[in-house]
Amino acid sequence: MIDGVKRTVRVDLGERSYDILIGRSILSGLGEAFKTLFPSSEAVIITDSNVAGLHLDTAEASLREVGVDPYVIVMEPGEKSKSYKGLMKAADAVLDSKLERGDIVIALGGGVIGDLAGFVAGIVRRGMRFIQVPTTLLSQVDSSVGGKTGINTSHGKNLIGLFNQPHLVLADTAVLDTLTPRDFKAGYAEVAKYGLINDPDFFEWLERHWQGIFDGGPEREEAIARSCQAKADVVAADEKEADQRALLNLGHTFGHALEGMAEYDAERIVHGEGVAIGMVLAHEFSSRLGLCDAAVTDRVVAHLQAVGLPTHIRDIPGQLPKVDLLMDYIAQDKKVSRGNLNFILTRGLGQSFVEKGVEPAAVRAFLEEKLG
Amino acid sequence: MIDGVKRTVRVDLGERSYDILIGRSILSGLGEAFKTLFPSSEAVIITDSNVAGLHLDTAEASLREVGVDPYVIVMEPGEKSKSYKGLMKAADAVLDSKLERGDIVIALGGGVIGDLAGFVAGIVRRGMRFIQVPTTLLSQVDSSVGGKTGINTSHGKNLIGLFNQPHLVLADTAVLDTLTPRDFKAGYAEVAKYGLINDPDFFEWLERHWQGIFDGGPEREEAIARSCQAKADVVAADEKEADQRALLNLGHTFGHALEGMAEYDAERIVHGEGVAIGMVLAHEFSSRLGLCDAAVTDRVVAHLQAVGLPTHIRDIPGQLPKVDLLMDYIAQDKKVSRGNLNFILTRGLGQSFVEKGVEPAAVRAFLEEKLG
Repeated sequence: MIDGVKRTVRVDLGERSYDILIGRSILSGLGEAFKTLFPSSEAVIITDSNVAGLHLDTAEASLREVGVDPYVIVMEPGEKSKSYKGLMKAADAVLDSKLERGDIVIALGGGVIGDLAGFVAGIVRRGMRFIQVPTTLLSQVDSSVGGKTGINTSHGKNLIGLFNQPHLVLADTAVLDTLTPRDFKAGYAEVAKYGLINDPDFFEWLERHWQGIFDGGPEREEAIARSCQAKADVVAADEKEADQRALLNLGHTFGHALEGMAEYDAERIVHGEGVAIGMVLAHEFSSRLGLCDAAVTDRVVAHLQAVGLPTHIRDIPGQLPKVDLLMDYIAQDKKVSRGNLNFILTRGLGQSFVEKGVEPAAVRAFLEEKLG
Repeated sequence: MIDGVKRTVRVDLGERSYDILIGRSILSGLGEAFKTLFPSSEAVIITDSNVAGLHLDTAEASLREVGVDPYVIVMEPGEKSKSYKGLMKAADAVLDSKLERGDIVIALGGGVIGDLAGFVAGIVRRGMRFIQVPTTLLSQVDSSVGGKTGINTSHGKNLIGLFNQPHLVLADTAVLDTLTPRDFKAGYAEVAKYGLINDPDFFEWLERHWQGIFDGGPEREEAIARSCQAKADVVAADEKEADQRALLNLGHTFGHALEGMAEYDAERIVHGEGVAIGMVLAHEFSSRLGLCDAAVTDRVVAHLQAVGLPTHIRDIPGQLPKVDLLMDYIAQDKKVSRGNLNFILTRGLGQSFVEKGVEPAAVRAFLEEKLG
């Protein structure tokens, strides 16, 4: 559809199917893609002030080239925009724009903007269509695939929201050159996750090629496409997370608890770092339960350390968390059902599975040992 | 499924299909119906303090009989609960309840509670299932069919929300005995609307049998079932209001403008009254355009007056609205597309159609004449 697209991943969800276009510097093709899909629609861009400073001009210019003058909504950067307050601000701004139900919301930003704008698109005038333009590695390989949108409340993260599929995802891999090394690494944790879920060949490929991904070589498009395809396959099989989709949460139960105990303070830990440590914990816990060879865990730790990711709870700056606090967060997790704890465990490299009914006492003993 | 059900209307929407059960005093069968549909789920009831005083005991007792102890959320009565503030209050309360994604929201109340609770159900944990127990005639024949849910904002009514279908609607016609005569009449306007859209036989039947409907005879179940079936047929053909569903808005463009100019002050006008006057205006405007015989309009006016509904703008207490103000509201209406006004007009009794591209000047001239 547009120049520079190196890979296209189709997310196959019947009438809600859509394409993910992946390539270097394809943001400048946004207008062309827009006009092809929505020849007579207007657009509203929802972004944050950080991303606006870097990429808004390119996006706007591209839309203007095809005769679309977008209305622009700039949110404050950071997780705090993913809130009732941010929702009201963004939704009211879309209504201010006077756009109509057939017009298009464009989410230009990372996971926060994608989750917020996708939710807003789903509820303004009972549903407008939307395009995701993810600008972080994390959002390109994770939050832009699968249609999970929403906000956080005082009860926890992502507890209010919708399954709402975009009509197009445009993943410009050159945009990732503007990320801090820390943010790039955090996103990479989710890339490695796809190998660890069920694709040992991909994990091996990552062990050999991760430097090319970080350097912006063609390996970057390859890794993003394989990650999107992996997620798309799971989502196509289980859109509403009845079962298999839970595998995508490998490392996330522990990870969310670590983010929670740090009060989501990005100075201490960001989501991808929580996932990295959480994946290591999931492997270690699997080993402790006699499910997984310790050598596999060592290999996972070695790779995550090689790219510079944290792998131990004590890698998080600040005080070590209390086990009780972590257990509280684990019990609150959405993956809990009727008091049993659901965990994603593994039987080996790329052999993850959903284990329902893990005993809380076993988790507690494991964490006490880790933090002892 | 439960005793006392006289009529069942199936709303046919593929995997989102559901039944509307209609009968006298069937609220006491809520528990039985719940257990049949959701054998291992918990329930949260969202209601308002007026309805709670009248019907909550019956609903709770019925659920307890089958071993379900519902969590209860009581909202303030009235339109102001259909707001961002009401949404946050209700959503946070559902999260407080510790219910899980597989549990059930029960909306016990009129249109406000149905719209709010249906929206909340759609977004808490990215979607819980819900049951509608509409307690007004208006909500039994209108808002409980079709899946429109949402809240109002300062930009207008129902601008934030979702299409979200319930899993069951339980319409207890005895509950309507507790309505004020004014509220019952207002709901009746929507019943008459189904005749005027495309079913002249039903309108004639109403002319003969309306007293039985008001008195709570078997005609009441008949009228509610025919209304629900009429709406269900339209919704099944056009769930997301691309076209035919717009017919359900007969009388609503004028009606919403009248509600708006009265600032939604229920002392002056309630929704059904706006619809009654709006339907008369739609017929008069159609006559003025040479589309509809004036005798048809007279017949519509005569019937609505017979049941005690307002039929003229001057029936609304307080100052007559300015034409400019009404035109502003009409232009803001969701049914506007690219500056053209969309109206539901009619060619005769029960011969309504969607007219796109009505000239604003013609509407203005008509209103000036009416208010002159």
